[in-house]
Amino acid sequence: MVLRLTGRLARRRGPVGDRCPIDRTLQIVGSRSAFLLLREALYGTTRFDDLVRLTGFTEAVAAKRLKELVDHGLLERRPYQEPGQRTRHEYVLTDRGHDLMPALLALAQWGRTHSPRKDGGPTPLHDGCEAEVRVVMQCAAGHPVVEDELVLTS
Amino acid sequence: MVLRLTGRLARRRGPVGDRCPIDRTLQIVGSRSAFLLLREALYGTTRFDDLVRLTGFTEAVAAKRLKELVDHGLLERRPYQEPGQRTRHEYVLTDRGHDLMPALLALAQWGRTHSPRKDGGPTPLHDGCEAEVRVVMQCAAGHPVVEDELVLTS
Repeated sequence: MVLRLTGRLARRRGPVGDRCPIDRTLQIVGSRSAFLLLREALYGTTRFDDLVRLTGFTEAVAAKRLKELVDHGLLERRPYQEPGQRTRHEYVLTDRGHDLMPALLALAQWGRTHSPRKDGGPTPLHDGCEAEVRVVMQCAAGHPVVEDELVLTS
Repeated sequence: MVLRLTGRLARRRGPVGDRCPIDRTLQIVGSRSAFLLLREALYGTTRFDDLVRLTGFTEAVAAKRLKELVDHGLLERRPYQEPGQRTRHEYVLTDRGHDLMPALLALAQWGRTHSPRKDGGPTPLHDGCEAEVRVVMQCAAGHPVVEDELVLTS
């Protein structure tokens, strides 16, 4: 089974480039370091030293990626100062950044299913109800959608 | 708003490494080229020459990534032969590969919303019903879930 393509997409003869919204997203966050820094931001980590410590990237890699994520509006860089210390900066997820949550959850879901471990990491639960949370495909009319019911139109 | 973490995850002092299922996934598909080759495979492109032509990557990059995706079981490499030609290979998405569909759709959804263009690329529609398809977070009890209702337990 593959997706059903219609319109220009079905007739393409070369790379669609920036017309692909997957590619537009990946041009901003298409690296393991960008995704893992966003994961930490979602977990509530804000300070540069903590982001470095909890992701394990070098300071140079983390600084470069954080600057890109700030430039693209996924993180906001805010000054803060502790008594007797120089001004430092923290990185706070914006609404644009928060909107990547379903993508991160979908990547986690694949890893839990297809690259399982005994200590397989956190399971996302629905607060109060305690049932496991998954990402699912659903249409605007409220129907669950499986892959062979998807049509890509352009 | 950030996620509520419990258990070992809340107490972590350093990188969680392979205990994170997002990271386990990204160690396999954590590059723009891997994602875009998988996108083409979902679109039904199977032959090496077509995968190169439609993604725009060099043959060397495409060959390296395709080998990784085959080694990790996301694509199957199958021989085929046309009359009078030498044997070639095509790359077909496995069930493991198909299961990345929600992640690709989630990345596309973010790009359509946050990096829009006039010719913004394909919109996924529900076949027959024609309503737009989105990825949503839902718990096993069938409730829609928003980010501040998510708890990560480990």
